[in-house]
Amino acid sequence: MLKGFSVPLTPEGKSALAALPPWHYSSDCIAIEYWADPVAIAALLPPGLAPDEQSGGRAFFWFLDWQFTASNDEITDPARYQYHEAFALVEAVFDGKPVNYCPFIFVDNDAALARGWAQGFPKKQASVYQTRSFSAPSPAAAPLAKGSRFGASVAAHGERLATARIQLEERIADPSTVFNRPTTMRRFFPQLAAGLRQKPPVDELTMSLTDNLAIVDVWAGSAELRIPEVQGEEMHRIAPVRVGRGYRLGMAYSVTDLRILRNYAV
Amino acid sequence: MLKGFSVPLTPEGKSALAALPPWHYSSDCIAIEYWADPVAIAALLPPGLAPDEQSGGRAFFWFLDWQFTASNDEITDPARYQYHEAFALVEAVFDGKPVNYCPFIFVDNDAALARGWAQGFPKKQASVYQTRSFSAPSPAAAPLAKGSRFGASVAAHGERLATARIQLEERIADPSTVFNRPTTMRRFFPQLAAGLRQKPPVDELTMSLTDNLAIVDVWAGSAELRIPEVQGEEMHRIAPVRVGRGYRLGMAYSVTDLRILRNYAV
Amino acid sequence: MLKGFSVPLTPEGKSALAALPPWHYSSDCIAIEYWADPVAIAALLPPGLAPDEQSGGRAFFWFLDWQFTASNDEITDPARYQYHEAFALVEAVFDGKPVNYCPFIFVDNDAALARGWAQGFPKKQASVYQTRSFSAPSPAAAPLAKGSRFGASVAAHGERLATARIQLEERIADPSTVFNRPTTMRRFFPQLAAGLRQKPPVDELTMSLTDNLAIVDVWAGSAELRIPEVQGEEMHRIAPVRVGRGYRLGMAYSVTDLRILRNYAV
Amino acid sequence: MLKGFSVPLTPEGKSALAALPPWHYSSDCIAIEYWADPVAIAALLPPGLAPDEQSGGRAFFWFLDWQFTASNDEITDPARYQYHEAFALVEAVFDGKPVNYCPFIFVDNDAALARGWAQGFPKKQASVYQTRSFSAPSPAAAPLAKGSRFGASVAAHGERLATARIQLEERIADPSTVFNRPTTMRRFFPQLAAGLRQKPPVDELTMSLTDNLAIVDVWAGSAELRIPEVQGEEMHRIAPVRVGRGYRLGMAYSVTDLRILRNYAV
Repeated sequence: MLKGFSVPLTPEGKSALAALPPWHYSSDCIAIEYWADPVAIAALLPPGLAPDEQSGGRAFFWFLDWQFTASNDEITDPARYQYHEAFALVEAVFDGKPVNYCPFIFVDNDAALARGWAQGFPKKQASVYQTRSFSAPSPAAAPLAKGSRFGASVAAHGERLATARIQLEERIADPSTVFNRPTTMRRFFPQLAAGLRQKPPVDELTMSLTDNLAIVDVWAGSAELRIPEVQGEEMHRIAPVRVGRGYRLGMAYSVTDLRILRNYAV
Repeated sequence: MLKGFSVPLTPEGKSALAALPPWHYSSDCIAIEYWADPVAIAALLPPGLAPDEQSGGRAFFWFLDWQFTASNDEITDPARYQYHEAFALVEAVFDGKPVNYCPFIFVDNDAALARGWAQGFPKKQASVYQTRSFSAPSPAAAPLAKGSRFGASVAAHGERLATARIQLEERIADPSTVFNRPTTMRRFFPQLAAGLRQKPPVDELTMSLTDNLAIVDVWAGSAELRIPEVQGEEMHRIAPVRVGRGYRLGMAYSVTDLRILRNYAV
Repeated sequence: MLKGFSVPLTPEGKSALAALPPWHYSSDCIAIEYWADPVAIAALLPPGLAPDEQSGGRAFFWFLDWQFTASNDEITDPARYQYHEAFALVEAVFDGKPVNYCPFIFVDNDAALARGWAQGFPKKQASVYQTRSFSAPSPAAAPLAKGSRFGASVAAHGERLATARIQLEERIADPSTVFNRPTTMRRFFPQLAAGLRQKPPVDELTMSLTDNLAIVDVWAGSAELRIPEVQGEEMHRIAPVRVGRGYRLGMAYSVTDLRILRNYAV
Repeated sequence: MLKGFSVPLTPEGKSALAALPPWHYSSDCIAIEYWADPVAIAALLPPGLAPDEQSGGRAFFWFLDWQFTASNDEITDPARYQYHEAFALVEAVFDGKPVNYCPFIFVDNDAALARGWAQGFPKKQASVYQTRSFSAPSPAAAPLAKGSRFGASVAAHGERLATARIQLEERIADPSTVFNRPTTMRRFFPQLAAGLRQKPPVDELTMSLTDNLAIVDVWAGSAELRIPEVQGEEMHRIAPVRVGRGYRLGMAYSVTDLRILRNYAV
């Protein structure tokens, strides 16, 4: 009997890119609130999601330094399981309720890519960086304090896909006023067999489920964000028309389940 | 209507990791014939494949420098589409016929990973290198000539997974005497939704179909191969018990289709 | 007039790998106390340094996540200036006083390599990782608390050069009891011109000078450390014979100067 | 006695980034002839080099896939010694004779960086790619033939520094009509000790010496080249005003010596 949540399947399941859930995550995050062209957002939404008329094109661009562990001591193997991520979340409506939808996401780790695909996150490989906050005082420390500045960037194949900068102004007591929508994705796996290509075996609208969500140390401030046009990418379609506030926060959660909202394949 | 063979789906289909077939490939390859423990090979085979009693544990370990193009001038964007690959092929029998099966495969490119998963290749990310043959004469040129030596290696997360060396002895006139089995894979996509995890939506035995296969400039010689035990990998299960000949060759083909031999999911 | 602390020199000095000092650094560090073969340590010391008979082969192996800034807002460009480092410090005596000497050091950033060479650190390129401590609570967070476990590793060219793990036991009130020796290096730049190769233009014993040194949040606990033999490296010469305690700390300092202890070139 | 052409020095000299010469190289190259602003070129030249009035701003931008070996079987360790390079050569005059000067150069390998600095090449780390020519026929093969197209790019820190494309038109019988100037560099090593910073210990004008130079399989055709402005780089100063022909060739040589044309440090 071969084992593994994902490929490759092996007798002990050690080679699998993704171990069995629960998957535990903790991160430092930079998130930039911005507004894109609402028509461009609408053009990216899968069936069943409608533009959020209240949002007027509101979106968030996130950068995350992640630490991951499952149940096999992954936390002490950072070369394999620590990673960086960047993604866009656009605001939409599902079944009358406000949600986020993730059209673009990038990671620098294949295990994160495999877990993400299983959820519906359309992950691609990229290099992602964000300024970190260190405890030893220095002009290089970027403490969580008024005036501190952070930069972040994502690039793939030697092309810069997004660049952000924020400057902290104030601590946010209640992050639920900012981050309160569930995230939806399109889970998709293609069909290569000729004649069946129009019938992908997996094509679903899904919702991310997070256990033990913790959002801590939230700061807000001014922000800059650029999403340039790059050959072979369409993310610039939702480039910022206007930029709002920037946030720097800690976030943790666990994943053990996935909600399937709609199955397009049947 | 959103487009793309793979995620992410977008209005123009430019962001997708994998473009629509046909996919065209040309490569330089180093392949090491070797014998592993037949019991270890049998333990990696999916249902429907039987050990090849004639093979006595025969396998090949391949290193490939690939150039890829689809129909969008990908050949002139090497930062995005050129890549390196390493994999093991073990000999087996399907329906009475000799085949190869691919239990482990590594690439350094996410587009190659996405195309591979769609075929059933259980690709993970790694760094892969092989000595190249250059035309300008030098002790550094490694020409295709008797006595030339080539090295190759694959590593992931800072751990060396396999190391090979070959020394060319003679040109092989008819490569079909060496490379003549079709390759089978297990195409698999997991289910994360709780309660459904035992029912992956995609779980098939597939066979790679190649159009316009060309194998050129085949040389054979002596070979060394090591596949050490590494934490978090099970490839050492099929480490060499005995090493045969080493080969250096060019190979090209196109992919437009996939044969599904068996569907485990129904 | 061309500008730049290091190459390349340009009209505005923006291309230079290293900007003019002061250089400001803040880091998270994992340090493993261990004992190597005293004869192997002695064989690595440059002229003017003697083995420390009191040390009995004592050494520290460090892993550092660094953030760097000079005076040009480098802190908001983490893709260019954030980096990871690993090095060995062996205990020695200079002029009757206890010092550390750095025989091996690895970074993943070319600006850090250029600054390091200017000081005398014999930096090479590698991939370096350490478990991080995140503020959002989770099994993935690795808080600074009793029982937390951290891993760290350094690898180059697909070969693992060192792997460490520590488990925190107690907070250390006074780090000066542990970290109190200045660090010495051999600053060296070679001569390629034939006939002059035995006369390198730069060959000095130097001492690192740090302004505003801060060591914070020091925890100690149990430790493991492995430094395997790898082709093309000699660091295994000082592999651990015995491993002491592991430390996790924050450290910051600035660099504006260098002390030249001895000039071998004259 | 510690050994090594470069740091780190060790008892056997195996850890040194650069082994003792001779250094043997073979490569596949793409070179783009272009013209930059002559004033910008003049502003990059070190003392002793004058603008070449005949050239009118002529320059070449090169991309090179290199294989390296010294005397320790480096050719069979491609993970450590194979690398990619990109550089600009601008035309100038030294002592009345036409030369090239190298103001900007990028590699993806630390051993190449160390050898380059010893010669005077101001190397920085980058990712460099070029379309390769494979022998197995395919739309992905890019043969050396009329109509074949090649792309090339160099990027650092997630910013694209240069992008080129060429299309082959004709074979060049005599490459000496194109590539016939020796290359000069500024060899420089900085001084960090306060008060001495204006007196770098190494500051020379040097000339690259190559033994057994071979230039083979030279094709020429049409070309495109872009060198965009990027934060933290000044290479765009010599961006193309006009682009000439593109070349694709093989080149090999050995290095055992260096000519020092002028010593600025005395």
